[in-house]
Amino acid sequence: MTARNAFYAQSGGVTAVINASACGVIETARAHRDEIANVYAGRNGIIGALTEDLIDTSQETDADIAALRYTPSGAFGSCRYKLKGFDQNRAEYERLLEVFKAHDIGYFFYNGGGDSQDTSNKVAEFARAAGYPLTAVGIPKTVDNDLPITDNCPGFGSVAKYVAVSIREAGYDVASMAKTSTKVFVMEVMGRHAGWIAAAGGLAADKPGAAPHIILFPEIVFDETAFLAKVKASVDNFGYCAIVVSEGLRNADGKFVAEAGSRDAFGHAQLGGVGPVIAKLIKDQLGYKYHWAVADYLQRAARHIASKTDVEQAYALGRAAVEFALDGKNAVMPTIVRESDSPYQWRIGETALANVANVEKKMPAEYITEDGFGITEACRRYLAPLIQGEDYPPYIDGLPAYVELRNVAVPKKLGTTFQV
Amino acid sequence: MTARNAFYAQSGGVTAVINASACGVIETARAHRDEIANVYAGRNGIIGALTEDLIDTSQETDADIAALRYTPSGAFGSCRYKLKGFDQNRAEYERLLEVFKAHDIGYFFYNGGGDSQDTSNKVAEFARAAGYPLTAVGIPKTVDNDLPITDNCPGFGSVAKYVAVSIREAGYDVASMAKTSTKVFVMEVMGRHAGWIAAAGGLAADKPGAAPHIILFPEIVFDETAFLAKVKASVDNFGYCAIVVSEGLRNADGKFVAEAGSRDAFGHAQLGGVGPVIAKLIKDQLGYKYHWAVADYLQRAARHIASKTDVEQAYALGRAAVEFALDGKNAVMPTIVRESDSPYQWRIGETALANVANVEKKMPAEYITEDGFGITEACRRYLAPLIQGEDYPPYIDGLPAYVELRNVAVPKKLGTTFQV
Repeated sequence: MTARNAFYAQSGGVTAVINASACGVIETARAHRDEIANVYAGRNGIIGALTEDLIDTSQETDADIAALRYTPSGAFGSCRYKLKGFDQNRAEYERLLEVFKAHDIGYFFYNGGGDSQDTSNKVAEFARAAGYPLTAVGIPKTVDNDLPITDNCPGFGSVAKYVAVSIREAGYDVASMAKTSTKVFVMEVMGRHAGWIAAAGGLAADKPGAAPHIILFPEIVFDETAFLAKVKASVDNFGYCAIVVSEGLRNADGKFVAEAGSRDAFGHAQLGGVGPVIAKLIKDQLGYKYHWAVADYLQRAARHIASKTDVEQAYALGRAAVEFALDGKNAVMPTIVRESDSPYQWRIGETALANVANVEKKMPAEYITEDGFGITEACRRYLAPLIQGEDYPPYIDGLPAYVELRNVAVPKKLGTTFQV
Repeated sequence: MTARNAFYAQSGGVTAVINASACGVIETARAHRDEIANVYAGRNGIIGALTEDLIDTSQETDADIAALRYTPSGAFGSCRYKLKGFDQNRAEYERLLEVFKAHDIGYFFYNGGGDSQDTSNKVAEFARAAGYPLTAVGIPKTVDNDLPITDNCPGFGSVAKYVAVSIREAGYDVASMAKTSTKVFVMEVMGRHAGWIAAAGGLAADKPGAAPHIILFPEIVFDETAFLAKVKASVDNFGYCAIVVSEGLRNADGKFVAEAGSRDAFGHAQLGGVGPVIAKLIKDQLGYKYHWAVADYLQRAARHIASKTDVEQAYALGRAAVEFALDGKNAVMPTIVRESDSPYQWRIGETALANVANVEKKMPAEYITEDGFGITEACRRYLAPLIQGEDYPPYIDGLPAYVELRNVAVPKKLGTTFQV
């Protein structure tokens, strides 16, 4: 059998550990040079494939590839670009095969969320129908933790750890200040459709009275009266109130609270996120001095406080993807299978891409407490293992020594261009 | 000589390492029980002294006191409460002496910023004038880094490290996404009057093109035209632009840009901070997709990424304060004296409280680049040592195992109350 090349691309919002999956893919491919000649990475994701802008990863040293394991972000560039269906844009699929043929790509590894798994599945189908020999394997990634079947999604555990650590630290801070100053702290976190990230904040509340005292989920319609009563009770009982709010919080009309908050004199929606809206509501109604934070990209990029479990799983899924491909498994995705909660034991499983594509895993109702402001013990059992362990990057001069790859382009072979 | 008691209190905004100073005070006092019988901490700072609400630190185990070294926030509670001058409120000073006499307090340790050093100095003067034997020693603390004489202020180095690490990580993230999505990232940091914290972000930019590309200082009047040109140049040259903005950024009228941004239909100032205002300006004028973060308390509470240098200095200053007091030094503050930049060598020095009280150390002009958007090599030489080294807290179940003290009250001896 002649070795063929592999294509690897990163898709959608990047995470603290997507490069750990890339590391798993490339290191495993390098260990099987008889079957995989080279890994070509798409520059800026699938766009790199469409425009024949491929990165020759063989130009990177083993040390630099190893450093991907502790480097956040997408080392080859990612993109927000969803391939349409065959009927809407067949030309994109034809172009992909044209590029793959030109560069003898026999393996397609696509590292992303639900949309990306759908794309991988379509690419596999298209190649099969076209008679082009291609093995397509998806690699899960999303901080939103919303893929079905897999126990969790790489990237989520590290965001979860960041959020839990941060709200614990801020909670300690506010508790110190509450007597004469700030009594309420609001931390806005990601998760527009699902409350997994907000829920992770609840891990910090390991005893009665500990922060966070309230979590606001996108799954629960915002009940202002009940919320304010709970804030007041927290301040009365514990002296302060620490709140984690999901950016996706909605009111009874189904509108994002961030947008419903207020409009300026020109009718423009409020600039701020939901964090400041909630903070100001508390100030207006209860009079407490407040502070708020919006973590935004800091939370998903925070490799310095990544979960060791998350890093290990991200790497293992990248490795498994290559192993699956070498076993001839097509149109599949490796998954994490949980075997026990405590101690947390897991193994790699697999599922057909068709099972994953475009299915969104929501928070189960039994993970949210009856009052809608906290997480249950069942939720804690699910989440707790995912933030276990620290996996610090190396530091130089007080800063994490993240790698930047050379990202040398593969010479183009096609005379044609493609407009994306 | 009969051993007398010490009073210790934390003042103003807390930090990631103020408890390390408390640890230095208490551990050193415990090593000199023949001279210092017990350390009484003020519950919620100086308010605890005024209201005779003292915490008996002898009730804490050695292990719990040792754990203060890695626990952020103020373990005994802090307060925002400035003692007035003698002429305006002599009753406060009389009350302090009344409480100190009742509890045989011979040593006064006050851990705070410029205001607190002023308070310590006044307490020392008042006791001397009243003929009450009291040794008052200040301990520096402030994330703002604005105390004179000392090389830097405990708390600052850790915020500096947090800001530099965070903007590096977010910069990597945005670089990955910039091709098809977010091109501009704005991170708002603390520092209403001085740009030290914003400047620290510049440490992450260790090579041409690295984030942050722009720093907005409170010392430099916001020049919208020059700023937008620089944002555009950064996107043109590097594909993206990462910005650190101080909350204290002002426009040519001297108004905070955060407030000048816009007002809602009722004339209320915009809720958000300066971060979202700057981000929206870029969107409106240049059209780039943006994200923004406001770190707020997360930055000063982030003990998980504290600077080892900062922790060591905070502890050493607490220890030195006790040693100074035992040497009979009154109305002084231990300082950090820098002996060399690289390798960073420092020792403990001392200064009279009168030299520190109410003097604000600004960023020198030569620390800001000529265009006003970056830091100079001189600034980098000053800042770089302060973020050196990591000093991770212990973790349990994936979260930092910070200590909560028992904080048992000392029985009151006075029948009187005091209204603060």
